[in-house]
Amino acid sequence: MSGNTFGSVFRLTTYGESHGPGLGGVVDGCPAGIPLSEADIQKELDLRRPGGSPASTARKEPDAVRLLSGVFEGRTTGTPIAFHIENRDHRSADYSAIKDLFRPGHADLTYQAKFGVRDYRGGGRASARETVSRVAGGAVALALLARHGIGVLAYTLELGGVAASPVDPDGALARPFFSPDPEAPAQWEARIREVKSRGDSLGGIVQVEARGVPAGLGEPVFDKLDARLAYALMGVGAVKAVEIGAGLAAARATGSANNDPITPAGFVGNHAGGILGGISSGAPVIVRAAVKPIPSIAVPLDTVTTGGQPATIVTPGRHDICAIPRIVPVLKAMVALTLADFLLLQKRMA
Amino acid sequence: MSGNTFGSVFRLTTYGESHGPGLGGVVDGCPAGIPLSEADIQKELDLRRPGGSPASTARKEPDAVRLLSGVFEGRTTGTPIAFHIENRDHRSADYSAIKDLFRPGHADLTYQAKFGVRDYRGGGRASARETVSRVAGGAVALALLARHGIGVLAYTLELGGVAASPVDPDGALARPFFSPDPEAPAQWEARIREVKSRGDSLGGIVQVEARGVPAGLGEPVFDKLDARLAYALMGVGAVKAVEIGAGLAAARATGSANNDPITPAGFVGNHAGGILGGISSGAPVIVRAAVKPIPSIAVPLDTVTTGGQPATIVTPGRHDICAIPRIVPVLKAMVALTLADFLLLQKRMA
Amino acid sequence: MSGNTFGSVFRLTTYGESHGPGLGGVVDGCPAGIPLSEADIQKELDLRRPGGSPASTARKEPDAVRLLSGVFEGRTTGTPIAFHIENRDHRSADYSAIKDLFRPGHADLTYQAKFGVRDYRGGGRASARETVSRVAGGAVALALLARHGIGVLAYTLELGGVAASPVDPDGALARPFFSPDPEAPAQWEARIREVKSRGDSLGGIVQVEARGVPAGLGEPVFDKLDARLAYALMGVGAVKAVEIGAGLAAARATGSANNDPITPAGFVGNHAGGILGGISSGAPVIVRAAVKPIPSIAVPLDTVTTGGQPATIVTPGRHDICAIPRIVPVLKAMVALTLADFLLLQKRMA
Amino acid sequence: MSGNTFGSVFRLTTYGESHGPGLGGVVDGCPAGIPLSEADIQKELDLRRPGGSPASTARKEPDAVRLLSGVFEGRTTGTPIAFHIENRDHRSADYSAIKDLFRPGHADLTYQAKFGVRDYRGGGRASARETVSRVAGGAVALALLARHGIGVLAYTLELGGVAASPVDPDGALARPFFSPDPEAPAQWEARIREVKSRGDSLGGIVQVEARGVPAGLGEPVFDKLDARLAYALMGVGAVKAVEIGAGLAAARATGSANNDPITPAGFVGNHAGGILGGISSGAPVIVRAAVKPIPSIAVPLDTVTTGGQPATIVTPGRHDICAIPRIVPVLKAMVALTLADFLLLQKRMA
Repeated sequence: MSGNTFGSVFRLTTYGESHGPGLGGVVDGCPAGIPLSEADIQKELDLRRPGGSPASTARKEPDAVRLLSGVFEGRTTGTPIAFHIENRDHRSADYSAIKDLFRPGHADLTYQAKFGVRDYRGGGRASARETVSRVAGGAVALALLARHGIGVLAYTLELGGVAASPVDPDGALARPFFSPDPEAPAQWEARIREVKSRGDSLGGIVQVEARGVPAGLGEPVFDKLDARLAYALMGVGAVKAVEIGAGLAAARATGSANNDPITPAGFVGNHAGGILGGISSGAPVIVRAAVKPIPSIAVPLDTVTTGGQPATIVTPGRHDICAIPRIVPVLKAMVALTLADFLLLQKRMA
Repeated sequence: MSGNTFGSVFRLTTYGESHGPGLGGVVDGCPAGIPLSEADIQKELDLRRPGGSPASTARKEPDAVRLLSGVFEGRTTGTPIAFHIENRDHRSADYSAIKDLFRPGHADLTYQAKFGVRDYRGGGRASARETVSRVAGGAVALALLARHGIGVLAYTLELGGVAASPVDPDGALARPFFSPDPEAPAQWEARIREVKSRGDSLGGIVQVEARGVPAGLGEPVFDKLDARLAYALMGVGAVKAVEIGAGLAAARATGSANNDPITPAGFVGNHAGGILGGISSGAPVIVRAAVKPIPSIAVPLDTVTTGGQPATIVTPGRHDICAIPRIVPVLKAMVALTLADFLLLQKRMA
Repeated sequence: MSGNTFGSVFRLTTYGESHGPGLGGVVDGCPAGIPLSEADIQKELDLRRPGGSPASTARKEPDAVRLLSGVFEGRTTGTPIAFHIENRDHRSADYSAIKDLFRPGHADLTYQAKFGVRDYRGGGRASARETVSRVAGGAVALALLARHGIGVLAYTLELGGVAASPVDPDGALARPFFSPDPEAPAQWEARIREVKSRGDSLGGIVQVEARGVPAGLGEPVFDKLDARLAYALMGVGAVKAVEIGAGLAAARATGSANNDPITPAGFVGNHAGGILGGISSGAPVIVRAAVKPIPSIAVPLDTVTTGGQPATIVTPGRHDICAIPRIVPVLKAMVALTLADFLLLQKRMA
Repeated sequence: MSGNTFGSVFRLTTYGESHGPGLGGVVDGCPAGIPLSEADIQKELDLRRPGGSPASTARKEPDAVRLLSGVFEGRTTGTPIAFHIENRDHRSADYSAIKDLFRPGHADLTYQAKFGVRDYRGGGRASARETVSRVAGGAVALALLARHGIGVLAYTLELGGVAASPVDPDGALARPFFSPDPEAPAQWEARIREVKSRGDSLGGIVQVEARGVPAGLGEPVFDKLDARLAYALMGVGAVKAVEIGAGLAAARATGSANNDPITPAGFVGNHAGGILGGISSGAPVIVRAAVKPIPSIAVPLDTVTTGGQPATIVTPGRHDICAIPRIVPVLKAMVALTLADFLLLQKRMA
C-alpha cells in the first residue's frame, strides 16, 4: 500500500501538508443517495478547530471546506466525493529555526530517513494538521452511518493523569474537552495551566463509543473489526495504545469475570467492547486511545542537527499543550470510517 | 477486503478450520533466493504446540507442515509459497453438546449473525487453531528478515496479574511460558493451578521486540508502522489492547519525560517504541499485547440457545487455561509479517 | 500487489508449479450458504483435462481436487474455501535438456530476469498447468453466479485461422473444441493434423458470453467491468488480445452503426457487448480472447543459452499443438471470477 | 475496490464530473526526489486539449492544473501529490434537453441502473472529461519513468478505417492526430469532414510504445504486465479492444512464425510486444487500443425516456467527431501509470 488511503470499499484518500497550499481528500465507494452538504462536513471540522481551550494553539485556521465532486442536488451520486481545505495562516518563518534540527518526539528524523528529503515547515505531512482531512472524510462516513441508525460519540476519559467520571457521555459534545463529566474540565484546565507554566505538555485518554452497530460487522481472521479499529486509531499521530472494551484490564481478570453472560435481552456487561471473534455483537462498540503528550515543548532537550552534531532544542512556534480536545473528533472520524467500510462490506453477504 | 489476506506486497492468505481437513496458507510476494525449508517452518510451529505447561490443552496435534510450492533447490523462487498442516486429532463428538448454545466470550453468536451458518465444531474458523497458519507464514517472514539482519523476540511480561522482571529477554525462548525472568514461571504455574482448580482461566501480557529494524519503515499517514502493528496484534483472537513503547503510560507522562532525547550515539530511552510519526527510527521496535482469559471455563454462566432461550453453560472439551504461552509465537509471527511487508515496500524508494 | 490474488471482495489466491507437489488456491469472500461440493469443482476441471483431441498433450493428470476448508454440511460457510490438486504425472527428466536454454515464446528469459532464479522443470509457475487453479476457483464463482441466475458459456470462434459459425453456442460444451458450430471441428482437426506434421502449432479465438448479468455491475472509472474482464483474460497465458462486443470492428464503424438503439423491450443489437460506461447494461456480456500458437514446437529456432551463447532449440516434451480447447474453460472461469466480484461489490449499494 | 484508484504501490485516485466544480486526483506512492512542477503536468494536459483539429469540440477549457501537495522546492517529497483542475466552461443549459433520455452508446442507462441517480449534465462522472485527471496523474508517472530511462510514445495507427504507415513514430507528437505518418492527417481530415457532414462519428486505433523498459516488470500470474496494460487501456471510455504485440494476428499465425527468436543481440522481431509470461523482456512494450466512434451523433436514433417510453434522440451539445486525437495522451498516461507501478514493485525484489 502507498499509505494514504484508508478502507477497502469505503475509502478515504488524503493529501496535504501543514504549510502547503491546502489539505483534502477523496472518499470513494460511498453509496448514492446519502444527503450530504458542505455544512455537514464543516460541522465536524469546527469541532476540531482550536477553540478557547487553554490546551489549544492560537493559530487561526478557519478550515473552510469546499466540496469538489460527488454530490448532486444535495445527495451523493456514488462517484468520488472530493473536498479541499485551503491553508490560510501558515507563517513559514516560524520554522526556519528548526530547519536543521531533528525535534525529539517528532517525525523529523524518521521522515528524513525514509524519504531522504523533508518539508521542515511545521512538520509537513507529519503535522497534526493532516487530521483535518480525516475529520472531513469521517463526516461523510457519519452521514452514511446515520442513515443506518448508527451513531458515534467520542469523549475524554483522562487528561494529564486526571480521570473523569463518564457520567454523561451524551453531553460531552457541549462541554470543554468533550468531557463526559461536568466536574472534570475545571480540574483539567488547572492541570494544563500548571504544566504550561513550566513549558511542558500533557497527554490523555479518549473513548469512542458507537451505538446501533448491527451484529455481523468485521472480516476475520485478519480484518477483524477490533483489528481495524486498532489500526484506525493507532494511525492517528500521538496515539500509543488502543484498547477494546475491558482492554488492558482483561489481561488481569479471570474468565468467569471477563466473559459477558448472554440473556434473551442481550449481553450482561460489555467487557468485550461489542466485539467477539472480531465481529460486532450488537452491543455498543467501545474503544479507547491513549494519547501521548505533545512533543513540542519549551523544556530544553538534547538532540542532533541534520548533520549529526549534538545540539539543544527548545521547540518554538505556536503549539497545543495537549492533543486533547482537538484529537477527539479525529478519533471519532476514524471509528466512523472503519464502521462505514465494514457496513458496506457486510452487505455483500445479503 | 475479504479478510483472510494479511499484508500488501508480502502477503499471507490463510484458510482452515479446527475440525476440517486441515489448515494452511499462501505467502505471496516473498523475493526469490531466500533459503527456506519445511524444517524452518516446523521449528516455529513447534513453539506453538501444547507442551508440558499446565496452561495448555492435552490435545495432541503434531502440526507437521508440508510445503506445496514456491521453493526450489532449497530457496524461494519468488512465486507463491503454499503450506498445509493436516488436522489429525479432532474429536468432533466433543462439541455436539454445545451445538445449540452460544458460548459467552466466544464468537459463536457473532459468526451466526454474520454468516447465517456456523461450523460449531470447536469454533470452526474462529478457533485459536487458526493461528497455526499465522505461525507458518510468519516463519517465512522471519527467514526474509534474518537475511536483512532483523530479529524478532517475544516474551511474557505478565500472567494472571503476576508480572515478570524482563531481565533476560534473550533467554525467554528456552524458558517455560517464554519468560524473560527465571523466577516468574514458578509463580505463574502456581497461579494457574490455583485458578484451574476453580475451573476458571487467566490472561496476560506479551511483549514483542524487533531488533535491527532499519529507520524508514512505515507508510504514513494511514499505514503507519505502529498502526499496522496494532492491526496485526489486535487481529489475533483474545487480544484486547495493544501498546507501542511507553503505551498507556505515555498518556500520563509530560512531554519532557516522554520525549526520547537524541544524541549522536542514538536515542536516550525508547518511550517511542522505535517508531516516530509512524516510521521506524532505528531503535528497537517494542509492542505489547494484552491477552484476555480463555473464555472456555468450567464455571457455569448464563447464555442463550441458538433459538434464543435462556440456558446455563459449562464449556466442555479440552481447553487451555491461558492463551499464554501458545499465543507468544503467534504474536511474534504477526510482527514479523508486518515488518517483512514494510521492508519490501520501503525498497521501492531506493 | 503480489500478483497471485485475483479480485477485490471475491478473491482467488493461487499457488503451484507444473512439477512441484501440486497446485491449488484459496477463495476468500464467498458468501455463506452456497451449495458446493468437490464434484462441482471436479466437473469444471474435467473440461480442462487433455482429452481425445488431436490438439492436446498425452500427459495424464487426473487433476482430482480436494476441498480443504470453507464448506460444512454441503454449503459454504463464508470462510476461505481452499482446494488442492496433487501433481501426479511429472517426469522432470524430460526437461533437463532445456535447463540451460531460454525457449523462444516462453517465459524462461523473463522469469530469470525478474527473479534471478528459475524452476526450469516444464515452466514451473509459468506453465499452463497453473490454470488448473483458475478453473477450480472459477467453479466456486460459477456456483455463486448460478444462485443469482447468471450463466457463463465459452466457445471457440476460430482455430488456426478457420472460423466457426456460432450457430449453436449452447451446444458447444458437448462438442470437440467447444465448438458452437457442428461443422467446424472436422475442419479444425484437419488443420491441426496438417500443422502437427510439420512440428508447428496454432492459435485461435475464444468467445465468452455471460447471460443473466443484471444491469449495474462495474466500478468506474478504473475498475470498469470491461477493464477488469480485459485484465482477467489477458492474464491467461497465450492471450494476446481482448475484445468487448464489436471489439476491433468498432474502430472501423460509424457512430450511427455502432450505437445500439434502445427500445422498451431492450437494446437493438449488442455492439457494446453488454457494457456501457464500464457498467453492465443487462444485455449479454460478450468478450473474446485471441490466443497465440503454442510456443513449444519441433521447428528449430534460434535462441541463447542461459549464459548468453547462441544456440538452436527444438522444444522437447509432450505439448499441445493448440491452447484450444483446454484454454476454453480457463477463460470461462476468469469471466466467472470477475462477475462474482462485481456482483458482491454492487450489493454494497443496496 | 471502489473503482477510482489505479495502481498498487504507485497509485492514482481521481475525482470530478464534467459539470461540477472541477476534476483532479491524488498520486500516492511516488518516491521522493523526482523533479516535478505544474509545468510538467500542464504540458501533458495541453496535448489533450481541443486544438484546431476538425475532430475536436469547440468547448474551451484552459485546463490549468494546480499542484496542491507533495512537492517541495521543486521535487517530490514522497507524500501524496494532489492536483486540481477547475471547470470553467460548463454550460449546463445545453444538457437539459437530454435530462430525461438515455443516450444510446452512452452510460446514462447504466449509471442510473447502478446508482439510482444520475448527474445528467454532460455525462457527469462518465464524461470523457474525466480523463483529464488520468493525464495529470500520468504526467507524474512519466516524470518517474524518465528518471529510469523509460520513455512512452503514443500515436494513431488508424482513423475511420484509414490506416497510417507508422514510418516516423518519433515525430508523431508534432503532427495532427499524433500521426506517425506525414501523409495520413490529410486523409483523416477528409474522412472526418465527410462523416461530420452527415452528423455521424468515427473511431480508430492507437498504439502506445514504451522504450527502455527493463526486463523483469510484471507480477504473474494475475498481475501480468500485459493483463494490467489491458486493464489500464480498456478502462478508458470508448476503448473496445486491446492488443499486445502481434495481438489478434497472433491467433492466425503458426508458432514458428509467431515466436521471436533470441540472439545474443536480443530478440529478432517483437510479436510478443515486449512481454513474455506477463513479464517485460527488455524489448519495447507495444500495446494497441481500438477506439469506438463517439456515440453522440446528430443522426436520429431510437431510445427510451428515463420513464421507459419510446423516443427518438439527436444528441445536442458540442461533441468531438472522433475520440482521436484527444484520447492519445490519455492512453499514453495509462501506460505510464502501469509501468511506474510495476517499476516500483520490482524494486522489492532487489
